[in-house]
Amino acid sequence: MISVEKALETVLNSSRYFGLEEVPFIKSVGRILKEDILADRDFPPFNRVSMDGIAIDYTSFKNGQRAFNIEGIQAAGSEQISLNNSGNCIEVMTGAVLPNNTNTVIRYEDVTITNGVATITVDAINDAQNVHAKGKDGKIGDLLIEQNTKISAAEIGVLATVGKSFVKVAKQPKVMIVSTGDELVGVDEIPLAHQIRRSNVFTLVSLLERLNIPSETAHITDDKPVLKSKIENYLQEYDVLLFSGAVSKGKYDFLPEVFDELGVEKLFHKITQRPGKPFFYGKTDECNVFGFPGNPISTFVNCLAYFYPWYHKSIGLEVVEETAILNADVIFKPNLTYFLQVKLSYRFGHLIATPITGNGSGDLASLVKTDAFIQLPNDKVEFKKGEVFPIIRYR
Amino acid sequence: MISVEKALETVLNSSRYFGLEEVPFIKSVGRILKEDILADRDFPPFNRVSMDGIAIDYTSFKNGQRAFNIEGIQAAGSEQISLNNSGNCIEVMTGAVLPNNTNTVIRYEDVTITNGVATITVDAINDAQNVHAKGKDGKIGDLLIEQNTKISAAEIGVLATVGKSFVKVAKQPKVMIVSTGDELVGVDEIPLAHQIRRSNVFTLVSLLERLNIPSETAHITDDKPVLKSKIENYLQEYDVLLFSGAVSKGKYDFLPEVFDELGVEKLFHKITQRPGKPFFYGKTDECNVFGFPGNPISTFVNCLAYFYPWYHKSIGLEVVEETAILNADVIFKPNLTYFLQVKLSYRFGHLIATPITGNGSGDLASLVKTDAFIQLPNDKVEFKKGEVFPIIRYR
Repeated sequence: MISVEKALETVLNSSRYFGLEEVPFIKSVGRILKEDILADRDFPPFNRVSMDGIAIDYTSFKNGQRAFNIEGIQAAGSEQISLNNSGNCIEVMTGAVLPNNTNTVIRYEDVTITNGVATITVDAINDAQNVHAKGKDGKIGDLLIEQNTKISAAEIGVLATVGKSFVKVAKQPKVMIVSTGDELVGVDEIPLAHQIRRSNVFTLVSLLERLNIPSETAHITDDKPVLKSKIENYLQEYDVLLFSGAVSKGKYDFLPEVFDELGVEKLFHKITQRPGKPFFYGKTDECNVFGFPGNPISTFVNCLAYFYPWYHKSIGLEVVEETAILNADVIFKPNLTYFLQVKLSYRFGHLIATPITGNGSGDLASLVKTDAFIQLPNDKVEFKKGEVFPIIRYR
Repeated sequence: MISVEKALETVLNSSRYFGLEEVPFIKSVGRILKEDILADRDFPPFNRVSMDGIAIDYTSFKNGQRAFNIEGIQAAGSEQISLNNSGNCIEVMTGAVLPNNTNTVIRYEDVTITNGVATITVDAINDAQNVHAKGKDGKIGDLLIEQNTKISAAEIGVLATVGKSFVKVAKQPKVMIVSTGDELVGVDEIPLAHQIRRSNVFTLVSLLERLNIPSETAHITDDKPVLKSKIENYLQEYDVLLFSGAVSKGKYDFLPEVFDELGVEKLFHKITQRPGKPFFYGKTDECNVFGFPGNPISTFVNCLAYFYPWYHKSIGLEVVEETAILNADVIFKPNLTYFLQVKLSYRFGHLIATPITGNGSGDLASLVKTDAFIQLPNDKVEFKKGEVFPIIRYR
């Protein structure tokens, strides 16, 4: 038995590098950037008009001039034109280059235009107003997005702007998810009285999809030679194996033996936690093996509490710990870390965690009514309403 | 000009029904469930052994018996067997049916087994312990997942368990995203001095991808007849059109005119907010039209503040408002609602929003450094550190 803290440390210390790949930028959302993104030009790349209106030389306004002959139009997307007579103006559009010999833009709302003459109708304007100066947001070569950033819609806009049509991201691990247990039948089958349908592998597929990790699934019967020969191949072919079931003390819980015989180094087996205690974790030189207990909630919590951090460490993503305020007194006597299911709500900027107790580790339906696990440490028995603990969200 | 509150109300009142579709359950993550999911059997479907060990008749233990001959093994996935002699026991595995004539399970840790006899080594056991009783988590016909739930990994497990290999979900709208502006060139092109690359359409594609909405994109030059003929077709073909640019006061901002000529009913144009003021919103009988202003941050904030709620209302998803605590004094004088970019952090269960001011609505790179907009109302000028306001997250 190992503590939750020690188990997590062990998992993190066995993180693995999967390499890099280049993907089209528009397919990179949710992936981890593996190059620094620099400005390829100044931002904006020219003195950019930021309001529709007229551009003038501010000196003329300062000298008392209010009416300006319109010399021309500077549209967005047109080459820069020049103001020839400093007493005139040019109509300018948002996104256009500020014309040569002008420095200030007065928006249409503050101008009347009659017979080709624009007259300013406000008393005060500022030098250089409504001009987004070249390089104000950034200079060519500036670091815009640091590597190891998780790419979201915000980053997509920047990648497009600097012309990164392909982008280097962390490669995803190759994952096989295996269920065991002769009581399991397919989702589209009608189970006999003593059977149930497979569900954990699909939960795991979905939990990995949240991380943009594709995965494959397999089911192996509780037959030791079959298990051994299949797993031997999987250990060669995949970066990660996730198992659900067959790691406890049952007569047909062959996995720990099989792992041992196949040279999987056991890093730990069993953690002082509830649910999810009989978790097996090991590795070979090429593959990491997560043997989750077969109960639905045990598999769920261990995937979030151990596989997720292991994956994040492996690809170089720092994840900030979230905390929430316990909304009810909880008493938990066993000397175990308690991952308690909670419903989250927001009140006055506070994140409130209301415990919803299910019927133990078998009650998958209870996950539907909750949003997160709150992690109650094993160094005490009473947890008071108002105390703050870390949470692991799943929605 | 219309207030943010009124604009949102208008948008929500024009929500639209897109219908239903059936998808394979494993592809349904992120979609909105459109049927109630009921238990197809009791949960668990039988008295389920929840620990590996031995099953006995508790009466024997109560009467002082501690050593039990092992009659047989009940494995998970095997048909139920029966205990023939109430003074004997059966070895049972987690997930197995509790054998007939037994009612209590003692785990292997609390038993020693020698020569086919299991001896209980603990002083106290409870009647019916380590048995997950048939129907304890739910009865056949119980409502497990309500319709209008957003499907996550937790729901996937339940769908698999009850055998819903296909599931009814809200159909997604058919969306076209259009950029305008002659200054725009492709992401893989080298822009001339007065040009910039297209970025807003890709940001919008990504923001819609977060909602699992696929979309198409197009670019139209600032030419009124071309705009008109293309948009006329799009209004027929799509449920939603999103535009970026050409809705302001510029000479080439043809969209409002074109919409009018094509029979798009204008619901509002311009909102008392910053950024994102010149937002056009309208509809036909068949199509909703969001005309976002062309500045990157304006497009971004309006998609989150109006398109997202419109979509959620349309598909029947209730979204809970999140609030955060402002981490610095802010002064904002214009009589506008201020969507201020913030970096979020968690401290003692509090969600803290630290303002990061960019260079105005053009500075897309500032979105990379922030997580959300905090929405500061236009009924005051000074906002104090410690006050709580709604936020709109984008990561």
